[in-house]
Amino acid sequence: MEIQNQGSKKAVVLLSGGLDSATCLAIANSLGYECHCLTVLYGQRHGVEVEAAKRVALSLGATDHKFVSVDLRQFGGSALTSDISVPKDSADRGGIPVTYVPARNTVFLSLALGYAEVVGAQDIFVGVNAVDYSGYPDCRPEFIVAFEQLAQLATRSGVEGHRMTIHAPLIDWTKSQIIEEGLRLGVDFGLTHSCYDPDPEGKACGHCDSCLIRSRAFASLGLTDPALKS
Amino acid sequence: MEIQNQGSKKAVVLLSGGLDSATCLAIANSLGYECHCLTVLYGQRHGVEVEAAKRVALSLGATDHKFVSVDLRQFGGSALTSDISVPKDSADRGGIPVTYVPARNTVFLSLALGYAEVVGAQDIFVGVNAVDYSGYPDCRPEFIVAFEQLAQLATRSGVEGHRMTIHAPLIDWTKSQIIEEGLRLGVDFGLTHSCYDPDPEGKACGHCDSCLIRSRAFASLGLTDPALKS
Repeated sequence: MEIQNQGSKKAVVLLSGGLDSATCLAIANSLGYECHCLTVLYGQRHGVEVEAAKRVALSLGATDHKFVSVDLRQFGGSALTSDISVPKDSADRGGIPVTYVPARNTVFLSLALGYAEVVGAQDIFVGVNAVDYSGYPDCRPEFIVAFEQLAQLATRSGVEGHRMTIHAPLIDWTKSQIIEEGLRLGVDFGLTHSCYDPDPEGKACGHCDSCLIRSRAFASLGLTDPALKS
Repeated sequence: MEIQNQGSKKAVVLLSGGLDSATCLAIANSLGYECHCLTVLYGQRHGVEVEAAKRVALSLGATDHKFVSVDLRQFGGSALTSDISVPKDSADRGGIPVTYVPARNTVFLSLALGYAEVVGAQDIFVGVNAVDYSGYPDCRPEFIVAFEQLAQLATRSGVEGHRMTIHAPLIDWTKSQIIEEGLRLGVDFGLTHSCYDPDPEGKACGHCDSCLIRSRAFASLGLTDPALKS
């Protein structure tokens, strides 16, 4: 494999099509990175996010956008990858939500690491957030730090002395702060989609944890979540 | 997700169908683990390994065997996932081989971690080996240690204080030692398959790095590699 290092500043950006990863892509863009987006199709119910991811990548001028399928439904264990019901109108229960997908962010970052190595990127952006999703073990800062340490040892690039950096710029922001920064950077949140349980036409339910957290954050800014507008 | 912890000692075993992972499964078995095998289909040329993995899991009495597809060909960057030629008759060149697949073992272990969490296993076995494959960054002991550290932080189980152990029992063994231990534990190496470039009928080429390392090791024990017998 030829590592490409022509001085261009490349980044791999994990893009789900949701609000957080859209803002994360806008941030990577604003920092001057040539953004190679990666959307992981993991058997989630919210396949409609894929279309949102395409729209978001296109609207923010991503250099490239790859989709990789990995069927985590093989394992089950989450409301997002099995027949466990998505809870409604119940945000802020505490504990680890049933929507937690075992090892999801480890799998996502591993795939991003492989992609980064092939395109010659030394930077990976991921829109994890420890504030509104504090129940997810793999959204915590210490998880990101541990993955970054692993990344130095896991790859050819690391062996050759190139440092891989995992950027999680949203990790300690509130959802309102993420929305504000996204708006400042020109993200069209009407293109994004975060609902855990959309209807067959892809419309957000407005009642799952993800919808509730989004709509409250927009409301706190005196705005209406464009994904919930009919 | 309900973590199953009924006192049974469960392990997830990464199983490629090759010689190393077959021996690794036999070791986990011999230690009394209930073995949940995981074969990752990553777009490798040697899809014939899948059939070998099925035979090996069956012959060694695995409790369960899951197959998860993740198409690393999307990224390319390796002789095993793209059109780069597999080198022949050229073992021991030094450096990182072109058969290195970017971040492969990170992806494999991440998937094993997710599976382990769902079945309630605290142990993962992987047949990586740092001696005969010293050129692969993700076959080194420090990589395994870093992944184990990550695993404590990545999962619900880790948050709840259960320690995840990554076992790489073959990591500092020579191929001959692996074969000897496998034979001692009753592994039928005629069922295994390691060739990087099998013919359309699945027969090993006998000339790629993987075939050469195997056949030399069998020869050093006064044996013929059963995978090369016609």
